[in-house]
Amino acid sequence: MRFGVNYTPSVGWFHSWLDFSASDTARDLEAIASLGADHVRVFPLWPVVQPNRTLIRQQALDDVRTVVDLAGSFGLDVNVDALQGHLSSFDFLPSWLDSWHRRNMFTDPDVVASTGAYVRALAAAVGDRPNLLGITIGNEVNQFAHAPHPSPHGITPAQGHTWAAAMVAAARDGLEARLPSVASPDAGSGSRPVPLVTVAQYDAAWYDDAQPFGPEHAADHGDATVTHSWVFNGTAAVHGALGAGSVRHGEYLLQLAAAWNHRADRPNWLQEVGAPTNVVDVADAPSFTEQTIRHALDVQHLLGVTWWCSHDVSRSLADFPELEYDLGLLTNEGRVKPTGERFRAMAQQFGGRAADVRAAGVGASGVRASGPDVGLVLDDVRPDGSPAFGVRAECAPGGRFAAAWLALAEQHGRGPQVVLRSRLTDRALLDARGITTWVDVPGDVHHEPRSVAHPATMP
Amino acid sequence: MRFGVNYTPSVGWFHSWLDFSASDTARDLEAIASLGADHVRVFPLWPVVQPNRTLIRQQALDDVRTVVDLAGSFGLDVNVDALQGHLSSFDFLPSWLDSWHRRNMFTDPDVVASTGAYVRALAAAVGDRPNLLGITIGNEVNQFAHAPHPSPHGITPAQGHTWAAAMVAAARDGLEARLPSVASPDAGSGSRPVPLVTVAQYDAAWYDDAQPFGPEHAADHGDATVTHSWVFNGTAAVHGALGAGSVRHGEYLLQLAAAWNHRADRPNWLQEVGAPTNVVDVADAPSFTEQTIRHALDVQHLLGVTWWCSHDVSRSLADFPELEYDLGLLTNEGRVKPTGERFRAMAQQFGGRAADVRAAGVGASGVRASGPDVGLVLDDVRPDGSPAFGVRAECAPGGRFAAAWLALAEQHGRGPQVVLRSRLTDRALLDARGITTWVDVPGDVHHEPRSVAHPATMP
Repeated sequence: MRFGVNYTPSVGWFHSWLDFSASDTARDLEAIASLGADHVRVFPLWPVVQPNRTLIRQQALDDVRTVVDLAGSFGLDVNVDALQGHLSSFDFLPSWLDSWHRRNMFTDPDVVASTGAYVRALAAAVGDRPNLLGITIGNEVNQFAHAPHPSPHGITPAQGHTWAAAMVAAARDGLEARLPSVASPDAGSGSRPVPLVTVAQYDAAWYDDAQPFGPEHAADHGDATVTHSWVFNGTAAVHGALGAGSVRHGEYLLQLAAAWNHRADRPNWLQEVGAPTNVVDVADAPSFTEQTIRHALDVQHLLGVTWWCSHDVSRSLADFPELEYDLGLLTNEGRVKPTGERFRAMAQQFGGRAADVRAAGVGASGVRASGPDVGLVLDDVRPDGSPAFGVRAECAPGGRFAAAWLALAEQHGRGPQVVLRSRLTDRALLDARGITTWVDVPGDVHHEPRSVAHPATMP
Repeated sequence: MRFGVNYTPSVGWFHSWLDFSASDTARDLEAIASLGADHVRVFPLWPVVQPNRTLIRQQALDDVRTVVDLAGSFGLDVNVDALQGHLSSFDFLPSWLDSWHRRNMFTDPDVVASTGAYVRALAAAVGDRPNLLGITIGNEVNQFAHAPHPSPHGITPAQGHTWAAAMVAAARDGLEARLPSVASPDAGSGSRPVPLVTVAQYDAAWYDDAQPFGPEHAADHGDATVTHSWVFNGTAAVHGALGAGSVRHGEYLLQLAAAWNHRADRPNWLQEVGAPTNVVDVADAPSFTEQTIRHALDVQHLLGVTWWCSHDVSRSLADFPELEYDLGLLTNEGRVKPTGERFRAMAQQFGGRAADVRAAGVGASGVRASGPDVGLVLDDVRPDGSPAFGVRAECAPGGRFAAAWLALAEQHGRGPQVVLRSRLTDRALLDARGITTWVDVPGDVHHEPRSVAHPATMP
């Protein structure tokens, strides 16, 4: 079970890539290591690395590599995200995708080829570092695929699959360029872990039926299923900040996402979760942090929890949503905040890294070993097998399925695994998941449907 | 009379600010100086200097200052443009103006204040350099104010005036911070020239009645009236690349713009003009260059001609309009092209800098001293003094006024000055301009109206 932190540089936020300072970075990473974290997630800015479609700046790649090495010197593994893309309400698309040069970022052949070239180059730049945890294609790139983005690059779900597959292949190509053993039948048998390749999405993938990137995109691509849990999405409004539905939201989203995994042992990664002070009182944030982590630990094959974020955004920087100035486990000056103390306590109690990160999820959370589970059935199809509609709205905060899951979770102490109705006949999968019985969502479940909020505040 | 070159860095184009190399820059500037140029115009990228609304990067300012000093070591003066903004089909707006943070860049109070802070900081960073020719608010920022920009920040003409005045004041504030004498009654009496502050617009200001920034914005703000002449705007289509209307287009635009000057001796600056090979055959480009410059020299109070551009864009960079790969006076490798040879011949024959650039226009072009002029009347108002409509369309390539001006120019050998009907009673201004008689546009003038093209190709 891994504990990590999304690294938000204290000086200049992510604009610090423009003035990269190894010593500033080292100071930040030292503070993060002191929290008991075993890894960080780092975020190059796409337009800084690839300002022209055919110009990938070597210095930018070198800087990322330096960050990986600096992290290693503090005992931290590193996950590198490629396509930012979107961070804390700000979008960063290169000028060759903007204005007169606007083309669909997911489907235009030149754009996709060049985006892949960047992902490949970034992976190759860090692929040989022993502390590389993995490559994520980008931070919540699905935000760009549909409203409420102000100018979405609309696509079909099938186009989303094609794009995600291309990006994952590009990342693996890059890693293989530096790690020949990955391509060999002996992959993973060597002395060092094989870096993960992952695809990260914001929660509209599970909650918004109109979002082209859906649960299948999370479960079908890469080496782990990634979730980002933010209770400002309506959850806190329904349940209250410390209500069960809120402190179990990370757990719920992990279980919901895992329902689409084709393998029972596919790792599940809560790659972003935080205590946003627009809906969580500052005084409640440490408790929220601890309860969120404890509940997430009940999820099978949990790779880890990566908290958002390391450092508060400096008040010297303008225009961030107010909550971003208080999301850090550390103040902007690097002092440990009460949430940071609680995170550290959790990391010390439950942390411990697997030698091979790709296998880290297997048995990492022993709780599930205690016995077979009752699964809660999600009606992804109707009883007659025909397609169901509005499935994701049922799963959204306050939705009927979400309410039923929460009721079972509170009844049993831990949240149930989720079973797709379309896979109830896949006995091998059910057996592998330890699910021997299942229940339908009760007809009379009390629920409070809300429109899912997708504010500009999402990190 | 000044000859200059718009500096397009040979390595990495303007993305080179991300990897600033003094030696690459020095090599480029040495090649530019060899063309006989006395100044360059340089273009920081706005999002690189001011990535957050309240973060103006000192290193970026230092790099601009270094370029100014390097240019000085090659005998070159420098004009620094602030808001890029737009360059060669690519837009560069900072993320704090984009997407979730989109606000009107000309009217939002926070945006205008912060944009002014950048202009001020940039001016202050270079204000004490002895070879600073001036500060331009930005390259054709009026492109962002209206269609055909794909996502314009629409404003009224009055809002455009407020914004331009604020930016000019910010630039002057910055200069004064480094040049106390500018603020004193003795300004300009010292041993060094006072840098110019200017506002640059693309030609929709004179040709498109819907463009909020118009001729008044060019003539009312700053210290000189700036024009950018590009015959791909429909001119070459009407007249042919070497037709009189094309090789006189720079001259025409200078005269047209000068009609709005409130002082007869306000300098006029042809700040951008080039030989775009999408409409000018490569074989014709040297002749186009020479004829364009010779005709421009006939304009009264001409501050100078600044050619676009120094270096061809490297073929290693993607997505530029085809013409951009062949606009340089120098190849990307720095070899002088036939247009460069012709530019050099013109600079050697006609060049020569004034000690005080603010006074450079006065008498700089001696041709006008040869005698009084016949002015061509532009009907900015109807004969009864009521507002006229469609004035700018008449002035556009192929328009009735443009055709009449060209006919007179060809008849007399040089283009006539333009007189606004609304100012025919301002005898002092007419006297100062040397205009003793004027003629109306003939009723039967032959003209070929065209929609003015505003392609994404405009530099």
